[in-house]
Formats: sequence, C-alpha cells, structure tokens
Amino acid sequence: MGEFDLIARYFKRPSRRAALGVGDDCALLQPTPGTQLAISSDMLVEGRHFLSTVDPRKLGHKALAVNLSDLAACGARPLAFTLALALPRVDESWLAGFSEGLLALADAHDCELIGGDTTQGPLNICITVFGEVPLAHGHSQALLRSGAQAGDDLYVSGALGDARIALEVFRGTLSVPTPVFEMARLRMEQPTPRVGLGLALRGIATAAIDISDGLLGDLGHILAQSGVGATVQADAAAALVASSVTYDSVAGLHGDRISTEQWRNWALAGGDDYELLFSAPASARSQVAQAAESSQTVVTRIGRIEQERGLRLVDAKGQTLPNGYSSFDHFA
Amino acid sequence: MGEFDLIARYFKRPSRRAALGVGDDCALLQPTPGTQLAISSDMLVEGRHFLSTVDPRKLGHKALAVNLSDLAACGARPLAFTLALALPRVDESWLAGFSEGLLALADAHDCELIGGDTTQGPLNICITVFGEVPLAHGHSQALLRSGAQAGDDLYVSGALGDARIALEVFRGTLSVPTPVFEMARLRMEQPTPRVGLGLALRGIATAAIDISDGLLGDLGHILAQSGVGATVQADAAAALVASSVTYDSVAGLHGDRISTEQWRNWALAGGDDYELLFSAPASARSQVAQAAESSQTVVTRIGRIEQERGLRLVDAKGQTLPNGYSSFDHFA
Repeated sequence: MGEFDLIARYFKRPSRRAALGVGDDCALLQPTPGTQLAISSDMLVEGRHFLSTVDPRKLGHKALAVNLSDLAACGARPLAFTLALALPRVDESWLAGFSEGLLALADAHDCELIGGDTTQGPLNICITVFGEVPLAHGHSQALLRSGAQAGDDLYVSGALGDARIALEVFRGTLSVPTPVFEMARLRMEQPTPRVGLGLALRGIATAAIDISDGLLGDLGHILAQSGVGATVQADAAAALVASSVTYDSVAGLHGDRISTEQWRNWALAGGDDYELLFSAPASARSQVAQAAESSQTVVTRIGRIEQERGLRLVDAKGQTLPNGYSSFDHFA
Repeated sequence: MGEFDLIARYFKRPSRRAALGVGDDCALLQPTPGTQLAISSDMLVEGRHFLSTVDPRKLGHKALAVNLSDLAACGARPLAFTLALALPRVDESWLAGFSEGLLALADAHDCELIGGDTTQGPLNICITVFGEVPLAHGHSQALLRSGAQAGDDLYVSGALGDARIALEVFRGTLSVPTPVFEMARLRMEQPTPRVGLGLALRGIATAAIDISDGLLGDLGHILAQSGVGATVQADAAAALVASSVTYDSVAGLHGDRISTEQWRNWALAGGDDYELLFSAPASARSQVAQAAESSQTVVTRIGRIEQERGLRLVDAKGQTLPNGYSSFDHFA
C-alpha cells in the first residue's frame, strides 16, 4: 500500500466543518466571525512519550488527547486538527487501530481531521490542533497563563500522579496490585482532556495551564508569567494520587509501605497528568464548583496565589516542606 | 540548556501578528474578516528529506520553504507557522544555524512563528503553516486541484529536475561540472517557494499543485480531482532541467553524454522541485504572462488539459512517448 492509499483508507473522511479537507495542498478552514483561533502543536516520539508496546488504538487516542488538553487549558472549543505521521513501515493492523483510536476521540469532541502528511521514518506523531475562543467586546476570552492574581485560589482537576505510577511499574521500579495498575495504566495511555471544564471556566478562571511536565513545574509557568507566587498544600495534591483506591492497598516493589514523601512526589512532579491547573478569585468558589459540576469533572482546591514571589509547600498541618521537586525537561 | 531555555533563546521573538505567540498552551491567531484560513503540514525526516550532512541554516530554510510552497499552490498569503522539533540532543551551533535559516525565510514572507513543541528523539521537523485566502462574494479564491478544464493550458514555474541531479551526485551515481552541481545543490537545499506567483494566479489559474513528488505524479492529482486528462510535451519540460547551463556541459559519471531520456526523466519524475504546476484557460495567456512578470517568476507552457482521461506524453515533434515514469511514494 502506497502513501496515498494509506491516507485514503485510514484517514480520509467526508469533510464537515472544513471548507476543504484532506487531499489538496492546503486544508481550508473558515473561522466563525467574532472568534480567535487557538492553535497548539505536540509531537510524540516512541520511547519518550509512549512505549513501543502500546496498543495503537490507545496511542491514537493519546496523541490527540494531549493536544486537546492544550485547547482545554485555553478554554478553546475544538474545531479541527492536522496529523503528520512518520512510520517505519506500512503496518495495516497498526494503522487501523491507530486511526480508530484517534478518530473516536476526534468524533467525541467534534474535531475534524483536515490534513497532514505521511512519510517513512522513525515513528513520530505530530498533531496540530485548532480551536476557537470567542471575543467579547473585542477582548479574547482565552484562559492564559498570565492572569493569576494574589489572593486567588489554586485548583487542579481530576487525579494526579497515576501516569507516573504506571510508568514506574513498566520500568520495574514499582509493583502495585493489579486493579491499581490497570487504573494507572488507563490514565497513562488514555488521558481525558478536560475540554468541557476549560470551556466552563471561561470568565471564571484567571489563569490556566495543563499539567504535562508535573504540577509544580507547570505551576512555575503560571507564576512566572503572572508575576506572582503561591503556597501549595502538598498533601491535598498527594490525596489525588491513585484516588480511586485506598493508600493502604498500594505497596511498593517489595510489598513495603509507600512513604508520604513518595505520594507527594508522584502528585507534585509525576508528569503526563493532562489535568487543568488553574486559579480563580476566592469570591468565585461557587462558580468554580458549578463549572466542575456542569462539566462532570472533579476539581480540588490545592493552594493559593500570593504576592510574594516563589513557591512554598506546606503539609496538612501547615508546616513548611522543602521543595526538592523538579519538573520534566526533555533535554535535562 | 533545557527545553524552555532552548525555545526562549532560538525561537521566541516578540509576537507581531499573533494575539498571543510562543509561551502559552496555545497560540491565538485572529483571521482577517472575509478570509479563509489555508493550513498545511509537512514533516521532514533525516535521510529521507535531507542528508545528515546538510548545513542547518539551509535545512531551516527548506523546512519552511516546502510548507510555504503548499500555501503558494493554494494562492494563500502566509501568516504564521508552528514548529515541532525532535532533536537527538541539544546542539547549540546546529540550533543557531537552523533557527537563523528558518526565521530568515519566515521574515522574507512576513510569516510569524507562533508556537510549537520541542522534544528529544530522532531528528524530525514538523511545520504547520497558516495562510489566508480572501472570499469574494462568499466564494473562496483558493487555487484547488479540482478546477482544471478541457482546453486549459498547462504551465510549470521555474526549473525542474535540479534537486534530483544534486541527489544523484550525492549518491555517487552522477558526476557533473562543479558549477552545475552548485546550482543543483542550491535548488535541492534551498528551494524557492513560489508564493508571489501563487498570489498573482488567483482568479487566473483553474487548478494548481506544487511539485514535490515529480511533475507527472503531481499532475496525476490534478487530473484525478478535476476529472480530465492531459498531453504533456516531454521536451518542453526537459528543457527546464539545469536550465541555467547548456546541456552539452553536463556529462555523466564517466564523462559520457547524458541521454535525452535521462533529461526527460529528471524533468518528469525528479521530485523535490517545489515549483507550481497549474492550468489556465487558453484565453488567459496574457494574464498568466503578467502574473509571471509581476511575481518575477519564469513560467513555461508544457501541455494541455483534455477531455479524454489519462496522461499522454509527446516529444518535440509531437510523437507519442511511452509513459514509464513513476512518482515518488514514501512507502513504495
């Protein structure tokens, strides 16, 4: 099967939103008047963003999910995406699974595949996603990283650290009961982009980011761009790790109890969470709760934005904790 | 140097056109009212789209040029692009050269880098480019592949086959005089996207495509999507190979004369040309000449669109030639 057959068989569908979809030099997209286009691009590389053993269906899901997560963090409604794919060889069963997982998530968010590229090379998946954000009286309604204010509450959606637990199990450095592993693996391989929450937070959140490199590292971007500091309740975050199981049921590699320190580490620096971290005025707590409910997403308050620069960690008793966490850096 | 320093040092610049550029979850772009957005994505892989020995400055140019060439083929005005980059390691001198070549071409076309991604992995460059096309009375002015009509003339811009000559020299299957090689290498490593010509052809050309996989292969897409056939004058195309030198000065590996057949092959199936192939009504010849002049691009008439399906090749005397040419397929 050649390049053009491959595209036609696995990726070409009648275009819906696009004026012109897959199959010309460019795709043509007509933005709704009075909106801005939100654009994000993520590249996934084997061995770094996914394991070679991953089910291609799940990989298709994840490749789009991490991009939709960026739209969610901007409060943008998904519109369309392009897919550039380097494949070592044409493997029809892989392509069938990959495109199925990819397009199922795309359909769930009404996000249309409008173009892209395929080539031969080491496995690499590059998606660029497009969403729209309304303008109100000429002002963008996008959630940015730069709007956090001293006094704001700090929230995180969903759960934390689970993807990291799954990774450690795959690496052989951790052993957990099967149900915990299955849950963690699902979170690592098929993260849920918080698109509905992002939309519901427009006009409420003052700043937002999606957590890909670890909570504290990504919080650092909000703090730097907003010119503020924060105090984070480490144990409120740690309580979100493996939140569907009891801590006592999770044991380490040799059956030993996992330390409080380890739980905190997974929560604060785990990476690959794809949850939204956002700030909102303390006066907007009921609106945040409403946004969480309307989008059916759990949201937890884990700290406070402060005037004083820097990041402070406290435990459940309010005692200061040392911050030795480092976020994920692809070149560190 | 970490991922974020790398982005800040080599790729972050004050945003101009974008409402929000590099450094948030998404870039925000506000399309001009009354326009459509043209979007294209191209992925370049080492060993397939470029040689490992290529000057990073030239590679930066080429990575964007092949994307701008897609905008040109749609008659779209460049606006912005995203860059996703997988690098085996952080090599500052490589990054300095790559970003310089990339941003110089971007500046020449007033095309702004608005976002992207960097990660560790086998060298891979994925650019998604955005342009705009006006709507006139609600109709898109984009040049498509599907509008060629029986009776139209068929044209190609610039020169053909030079990139293929350079590739054959690099492969050691061809030896040519140094000035010919230098010219061919420049064409392979730093193609000129025909953006100005594409813009000038709006409202004149009935169909257009950029030649990346070889003239006949790409012509096939126009014919299929327009539901027509064509006759191509093989020698008119062959005359565009190494057009800045005389044929007699180009000798093969052992100093032997290069056959007519070989010249035709380079022209018709060479690949990597990034010229525009387009059709226009015979009644619009003077308008085509004017578009060529205003964009300072040589344009040559090489054939005719016909009702009868299929592709026919003729020589300078009008004699039918066998068509044994095959276009480039990344998975063939």
